[in-house]
Amino acid sequence: MNDSTIVTESVKRFKWVGTRPIRPDGVPKVTGRALYGADLKLPGMLFGKVLRSPHAHARIKSIDTSAAEKLPGVKAVVTAKDLPEQKFDYIGPERVAVNFWHVTRNIMAREKALYEGHAIAAVAAISASIAEQAAALIKVDYEVLPHVIDVDDAMKPDAPLLFEDMITRGMDPAPTKPSNISKKLEFAIGDVEKGFKEADVVIEKEFKTAAVHQAYIEPHACVAKAEADGQIEIWSSSQGHFTMRALTAQILGAKLGDIRVTPAEIGGGFGGKTVTYLEPVAAMLSRKAGLPVRLNMSREDVFRASGPTSGASMWVKIGVKKDGRITAADGVFKFQAGAFPGSPVMNGCLCAFAPYDIPNQHAVGYDVVSNRPKAAAYRAPGSPIAGFAAESVIDMCAKAIGMDPLELRIKNVAGIGAPTIAGPKHAHAGFRETLEALYNHPGYKAKLGKNQGRGVACGYWFNGGGESGATIQVNADGTVLVATGSPDVGGSRASMALMAAETLGVDYSNVRAIVADTGSVGYTHVTGGSRVTFATGIAVVTATRSAIKDLCKRAAMIWDVDPEGVVWEDGCAKPAGSNVGDFKPLTLKELAAKAAATGGPITASAGTNAGGQAPGFCAQFFDVEVDPETGRVDILRAVCAQDVGRAIHPSYVEGQMQGGVVQGIGWALNEEYIYNAKGQLDNPGFLDYRCPVASDLPMIETIMVEVPNPVHPYGAKGVGEANICPPMAAIACAVENAIGKRMTELPMSPPRVLAALSS
Amino acid sequence: MNDSTIVTESVKRFKWVGTRPIRPDGVPKVTGRALYGADLKLPGMLFGKVLRSPHAHARIKSIDTSAAEKLPGVKAVVTAKDLPEQKFDYIGPERVAVNFWHVTRNIMAREKALYEGHAIAAVAAISASIAEQAAALIKVDYEVLPHVIDVDDAMKPDAPLLFEDMITRGMDPAPTKPSNISKKLEFAIGDVEKGFKEADVVIEKEFKTAAVHQAYIEPHACVAKAEADGQIEIWSSSQGHFTMRALTAQILGAKLGDIRVTPAEIGGGFGGKTVTYLEPVAAMLSRKAGLPVRLNMSREDVFRASGPTSGASMWVKIGVKKDGRITAADGVFKFQAGAFPGSPVMNGCLCAFAPYDIPNQHAVGYDVVSNRPKAAAYRAPGSPIAGFAAESVIDMCAKAIGMDPLELRIKNVAGIGAPTIAGPKHAHAGFRETLEALYNHPGYKAKLGKNQGRGVACGYWFNGGGESGATIQVNADGTVLVATGSPDVGGSRASMALMAAETLGVDYSNVRAIVADTGSVGYTHVTGGSRVTFATGIAVVTATRSAIKDLCKRAAMIWDVDPEGVVWEDGCAKPAGSNVGDFKPLTLKELAAKAAATGGPITASAGTNAGGQAPGFCAQFFDVEVDPETGRVDILRAVCAQDVGRAIHPSYVEGQMQGGVVQGIGWALNEEYIYNAKGQLDNPGFLDYRCPVASDLPMIETIMVEVPNPVHPYGAKGVGEANICPPMAAIACAVENAIGKRMTELPMSPPRVLAALSS
Repeated sequence: MNDSTIVTESVKRFKWVGTRPIRPDGVPKVTGRALYGADLKLPGMLFGKVLRSPHAHARIKSIDTSAAEKLPGVKAVVTAKDLPEQKFDYIGPERVAVNFWHVTRNIMAREKALYEGHAIAAVAAISASIAEQAAALIKVDYEVLPHVIDVDDAMKPDAPLLFEDMITRGMDPAPTKPSNISKKLEFAIGDVEKGFKEADVVIEKEFKTAAVHQAYIEPHACVAKAEADGQIEIWSSSQGHFTMRALTAQILGAKLGDIRVTPAEIGGGFGGKTVTYLEPVAAMLSRKAGLPVRLNMSREDVFRASGPTSGASMWVKIGVKKDGRITAADGVFKFQAGAFPGSPVMNGCLCAFAPYDIPNQHAVGYDVVSNRPKAAAYRAPGSPIAGFAAESVIDMCAKAIGMDPLELRIKNVAGIGAPTIAGPKHAHAGFRETLEALYNHPGYKAKLGKNQGRGVACGYWFNGGGESGATIQVNADGTVLVATGSPDVGGSRASMALMAAETLGVDYSNVRAIVADTGSVGYTHVTGGSRVTFATGIAVVTATRSAIKDLCKRAAMIWDVDPEGVVWEDGCAKPAGSNVGDFKPLTLKELAAKAAATGGPITASAGTNAGGQAPGFCAQFFDVEVDPETGRVDILRAVCAQDVGRAIHPSYVEGQMQGGVVQGIGWALNEEYIYNAKGQLDNPGFLDYRCPVASDLPMIETIMVEVPNPVHPYGAKGVGEANICPPMAAIACAVENAIGKRMTELPMSPPRVLAALSS
Repeated sequence: MNDSTIVTESVKRFKWVGTRPIRPDGVPKVTGRALYGADLKLPGMLFGKVLRSPHAHARIKSIDTSAAEKLPGVKAVVTAKDLPEQKFDYIGPERVAVNFWHVTRNIMAREKALYEGHAIAAVAAISASIAEQAAALIKVDYEVLPHVIDVDDAMKPDAPLLFEDMITRGMDPAPTKPSNISKKLEFAIGDVEKGFKEADVVIEKEFKTAAVHQAYIEPHACVAKAEADGQIEIWSSSQGHFTMRALTAQILGAKLGDIRVTPAEIGGGFGGKTVTYLEPVAAMLSRKAGLPVRLNMSREDVFRASGPTSGASMWVKIGVKKDGRITAADGVFKFQAGAFPGSPVMNGCLCAFAPYDIPNQHAVGYDVVSNRPKAAAYRAPGSPIAGFAAESVIDMCAKAIGMDPLELRIKNVAGIGAPTIAGPKHAHAGFRETLEALYNHPGYKAKLGKNQGRGVACGYWFNGGGESGATIQVNADGTVLVATGSPDVGGSRASMALMAAETLGVDYSNVRAIVADTGSVGYTHVTGGSRVTFATGIAVVTATRSAIKDLCKRAAMIWDVDPEGVVWEDGCAKPAGSNVGDFKPLTLKELAAKAAATGGPITASAGTNAGGQAPGFCAQFFDVEVDPETGRVDILRAVCAQDVGRAIHPSYVEGQMQGGVVQGIGWALNEEYIYNAKGQLDNPGFLDYRCPVASDLPMIETIMVEVPNPVHPYGAKGVGEANICPPMAAIACAVENAIGKRMTELPMSPPRVLAALSS
């Protein structure tokens, strides 16, 4: 059992929502039967291999694939030449909105290899070993160029340029010289100069964070089958098969309707599986070979070529009065984008100070390319990075005025109506309750020992809404199927089934949720941004209500009464009043058994573009012990309080909270990309890239704070992301409280802690 | 090009309906990329093998599976004991309605093996060869019993009984003695005795037909994956994955909602893949083994254990006036059911005389079990069998009064309002036009040479309606996906896409149709009974119209006008009149691109239980030449005229017509089950079971006669079945006209023709 608490506002209780039935994805996963991206094998299927650049930065003068093509067993070779060029700066269709000129170059290098591991060519052969041999036979004539890895180095005027003609956007006047800075962003409310003058204490500090990988267990994998008439079928593990379809269509110049993507079970994504690396390449190989092709990454490929999140270099300045009121906050956030523009720096700017009601705010962001894999989304993209800096400085402010860091935060809590740097005022409550719940946790006042410290930090995430589709089918035996387009990364099949069961008033055990392919359900945006329980949930409830309307009509037909005279209650159609007639209520099961006679299958579909999602707040404290001999930091206690709207399936919510904390601990203490002098990654594997494992961790205590989101039928808000934001700053604060040294650079690995101890 | 004609009533022409775009299933099939039932391979997948009875009739005294279970590599063994007993005489849920006490015994023998090939046990092992070894290690203690194969023999009072307690139903008084006759049926209208008295000529004759197999190219195959928590996934090739789900659920005692069946491409079914043999066994093996299991039949298994259609023994008597008016028709139809009750004898009774307006009709049917595989549906089940007898006698009547056999039929054509033996009056036209079209074919009057003859016959099929589900998705680029639950056996993906394109007013090339799994679309009955273009077509058009309503609403939202003020024309939303405003029409593509901003995904689903299907009529003539030395019959010319409602995709309709004729030719001339004295099948393979191949056949000429069905939005009626009914009688008539001998027993194989020649 989980040592968790639910702090509940006085809310209506439900029969199924909020319960913890057995997980529908549990048994297949623990028994090893769940089917992931690499699990499908088709007749005649070829094995693909991607040749990757050994250089961090090199001009590709020529690629000679002839020897590879001649190797017996090789059926296709693909280079960037096979993929149509995209218009310069083309930002794809509405639902995708990424720069396809960049995307196609990240999928397959054209003019230059921009990072070690950048895809150069791909082959498909009758065996994996022949494919590997063939890849080795491809001759690439590289002109090796100087490279740059670090964000501060990349911003230097004499830094090697990834794009020789890239002029920074967002500056007025525009610079005349190209640089690695793709974009400058600036946000402000109030007057920070005035605010700092009002403050009694002003603290500023610089911070650095390392790029960290999402570290999903399942490497990227897909199978593609392209027909000679243009039809393409893809089976892949992703966070959004509709997005994989859209990206593949645009990269190949194909119609959406000609591509069908079937989602595999997904072995973790955390944002990193919202982008495509393999699908278009596999489809192109299949098209050339006329046979199905499987492509999958090795673990090394995953580290070298799939998206980590940005490392960053930051400066934050905060002013506070003696009474604890924050008067102003300022920040400069320089984010690594990797080899192509597009870091989450905007989110960093918008999230850093978002939990607080601060009248004067200013934030500047820089999106900076360097010779590293292109950054991809990672759990609350941008927020944990900027939050590390902002929350650390808030802690320093609390210390400076001698106030408890949670009390200071409660004093500055962003409630409904508080200003945000993004513009619109805060519209949802929940943070105060979360802070108070953490403050009241008995552990928060517990005594600590020698070399031990306690640290606090908070986090913020927008949470997502947007487009989702759902269908519902009522079977003849009264069981119910709910199909959505949302890959299930964190229990959405359970939560969708719970919401459908609640809405229908039937037993959860009679409801199954599945993830349908792109041909079978309405367009659904990625599983990401903590949008699924909210937006796809709304689609499911809408479809379910539509089915209920149909069920009432059928009851009316059976009773020969007006459909208006029938209501749905407790899983039954009932006469709306005694004037309608004296009819025995008809259960879902009874109506389902009569479906054929009352019009045929009971089926409904719905789509939504859901707005009104509530942002998520999280507050955590950590107790740590630092070993002064080795610099190793042990986590003694971790307590996570989160504003969860309503926990549809509390066990999964706890899992989300614990997962976010664990990833934050890794980010805080150990995870980093280590590059050698040639710009090659030295630790592309789980032995050297050090994620926390169970033995590194205490039980993560969770406090679910329920302040229902009024816009959602069951009060749900996203719960997947805010929890990863606090650990880095909270642990840094705890370390300071243990050893008296403020750590400002991540990870706080033993060598770095030792260095701090001896400084 | 096909040498075909369309005879068209004055009907509204369409843009897409009636055109012949390239077949969406064509390229994957001809390139070998289409994925059939046996094509899926899952990790850890086991290979199943079914042990089958070598005896035609034997009591199973015991089954010892211990040696098989001990063989290394064997993961599960299943016998009937593993399948829950079904209630005696239990006719399953509404949508399935088969006798499950029988079905479970056909899937796995319990008390007795009732035919050679009857499944006794099944094993799953890590390789096919180990599974085969293991099956051989199963010790079955049989008590061999006397057997009976032929239907007339089975009806004899002293025949060996398959079910020792089976009392014939439908007799009054009920017989006191058990027999192999499961059921007697009787239908009558008018007064046949009176009718025969009014006739100038009365002819009666006895006929026999052989059991023939559907002879689909793809043997039955499936993969099942059962989870420990009750969830089951099945991939299988069938004519109805919803039906496979229903049958499997009932056989295993599982919930419909716990089983998800994904349809594979199907390599022919012709009715034979509407029943289950393997799915429940594979699921049970998987449940016991905890691993996915593939089961597939060999060709021999298919012949020995999957359903052929009935052989029959019949008597028909018809009276006709000199002017050609048929006054009365009577028939006795004894149909082999195979090892379990359930031949299509009712259809035989109802179809035999259905094409004609005969005031006095009488038909008696017997459903008779014998030691042969259980009969399964085969293209117009029952009609071709009874039609062989009825049409042969009609031809004899025509000869007797010296009238052209087509003229006689035109004289007696069943038009709207004609009585039927089933009760309701004929409600659809089409047969007269069909007869006239055939009569006017230039070949019908062509001169014949020595040993040549021409024969005519007709056929009737009810055609089907019933339950179907469909969904439609409009993609962001304006392409459209149509998903249905109907496995595509004859081009339904093309016809669904054509109807959706026509309804939407968009280009066919932008519409793709797919077959969705049981979790993703409304309940859909089997692809059979020529119901899909009609019923599933109605579901598709209904869903499309629902999407159009949504599109009009979105245009109204963009224009800020009342939704009532928007109409859909030529693929665009347009203002309904000048009073609405002066707006440029919005195309589907433009509206699709704005989907996110106007409410999210454009998605609609619909279900129907479609009634009003029109029956199908077919008339054919054949020219044959008989080799008097060998008795071989060559088909010189085959012309098929069929009442097709409206040909949605004429090429597929021609394909259906040609396919039905070819199967009829095989049935007429060569196909039969040959049993040895032990009741074992001697010809379970395509070398010895002689289906017609291309070199046996002339070009089959097709005449599509379009008399639109007013109940269907595009006038469609089923076209898949009536065409198999005429060939047997028509060829028999042609043979008589060539050699002067009336053949009354099928097949008219060389030995039998030689015997007739020398008689």
